[in-house]
Amino acid sequence: MKQYRVKLGVKLSLKQYDPDETGEYKKSAQGKNRAKAETAKLIAKLDGLQERLYANATRSLLIVLQGMDTSGKDGTIKGVMSGVNPQGCKVVAFKAPSDHELGHDFLWRVHREVPRRGQIGIFNRSHYEDVLITRVHGWVSDKVAKRRFNQIKEFEELLTENGTAILKFFLHISKDEQKERLQARIADPEKRWKWSSGDLEERKLWDDYQKAFEDVISATSTICAPWYIVPANRKWYRNLVVADRVVNALEDMKLKTPPAPEGVDFAKLKIV
Amino acid sequence: MKQYRVKLGVKLSLKQYDPDETGEYKKSAQGKNRAKAETAKLIAKLDGLQERLYANATRSLLIVLQGMDTSGKDGTIKGVMSGVNPQGCKVVAFKAPSDHELGHDFLWRVHREVPRRGQIGIFNRSHYEDVLITRVHGWVSDKVAKRRFNQIKEFEELLTENGTAILKFFLHISKDEQKERLQARIADPEKRWKWSSGDLEERKLWDDYQKAFEDVISATSTICAPWYIVPANRKWYRNLVVADRVVNALEDMKLKTPPAPEGVDFAKLKIV
Repeated sequence: MKQYRVKLGVKLSLKQYDPDETGEYKKSAQGKNRAKAETAKLIAKLDGLQERLYANATRSLLIVLQGMDTSGKDGTIKGVMSGVNPQGCKVVAFKAPSDHELGHDFLWRVHREVPRRGQIGIFNRSHYEDVLITRVHGWVSDKVAKRRFNQIKEFEELLTENGTAILKFFLHISKDEQKERLQARIADPEKRWKWSSGDLEERKLWDDYQKAFEDVISATSTICAPWYIVPANRKWYRNLVVADRVVNALEDMKLKTPPAPEGVDFAKLKIV
Repeated sequence: MKQYRVKLGVKLSLKQYDPDETGEYKKSAQGKNRAKAETAKLIAKLDGLQERLYANATRSLLIVLQGMDTSGKDGTIKGVMSGVNPQGCKVVAFKAPSDHELGHDFLWRVHREVPRRGQIGIFNRSHYEDVLITRVHGWVSDKVAKRRFNQIKEFEELLTENGTAILKFFLHISKDEQKERLQARIADPEKRWKWSSGDLEERKLWDDYQKAFEDVISATSTICAPWYIVPANRKWYRNLVVADRVVNALEDMKLKTPPAPEGVDFAKLKIV
């Protein structure tokens, strides 16, 4: 799944990534079932890896999820992380900043929420909104946005140098797929509570958003905090790609069972 | 499982609760499997209930886990809550307070961590430590401890009056069971990292702790924030009891699918 990693130093073009692609899995019930079985295996692995991460409490993992409305940020969390022990997993959904938060620089509220050592932290939206929605609507100038690209890079470097691995996922859906998903929300009375008329307004800005994503992803793809463009039209393939990368990142840490406390003679210990 | 709910206005005697009991389930492989199947069904229910809690974002659930060392607080979280979408679930493990936290009243750091509307919050240890370890070691006087009982009651009342349901579980193990669990930590090199010599010191104070638990549980059992004495010698029965109570508390909220936003004519909506 490494293939979805954004290359460094090249301007990203989202058009070159097919949101419908499913890799070696056929777009059929059979392909879907194979992918789901593979994902289940990865999730089972995740369980043990997360336990080790938590036990050692020396490293942490930060997962950033971004994408257009309906791209499946919530669904990815549910689909990939629902088996994980919630004690070692912290999800933060960033909404519009409060007045209190706006009284600080844009990374302030984000820094407070990064995972502690031993934790997997998941950002459902993130500091990237501060160069996406803000930029598309012209709330910040291009000059400020570009300065923020650098600030983000340096912030993420700080985190990785201090033991946090970072994975950033752009959940890539097509404009048609978004249309279908929004229409499903309208058609099903059980789903209508999810409806927000703002989504329609944002959809009109589709091209601007794609461009803003291309800009910031190009500028903030680094070795230590890579971006992945995840084909997300098929939920089952999206989950497989994300699960694969999360397992890979944890395996890369090569964590072992933590050492026993020093100075204890276990052979002589007696409990009465 | 209602039977494990502590009666109001009666002085609790832990001796009257059998930590080894397994209710209608036999202490055999067969009984264990039956209980596990029942727990799995409850966990499946939990998934949908939690989704509805999150969608409505009008109520929240706070679960407090207390018990002696090795009583299974971590294991309960893993066993009961691992299937839950971590986006709607927040676990807070309270350790010894920092100097910064000690600069405030004992409920300050706790209040900051209560679940927001829509969330399930789990306290792995809690404000109850401030009338348990502190009292057993004489760090606070009986007079202060008893004043805290009232402060805790009023704090929990504040939460429940504002939409938080509260469940408090005392995971009840026997002194012999603790011995076995500590010995397992010593015997298995893979588990030795969990060893803390402090645990042995605390074990010597077993009777004092049981008494301190009896005092505070008697004083803080209320209709809105009940305590349950969970038989916890058998992990599978412990998980079943907790899962049953959590599902019951969420069902009691009688939450429905949230209403669709007002003023939207869904029949006429068109997505282009």
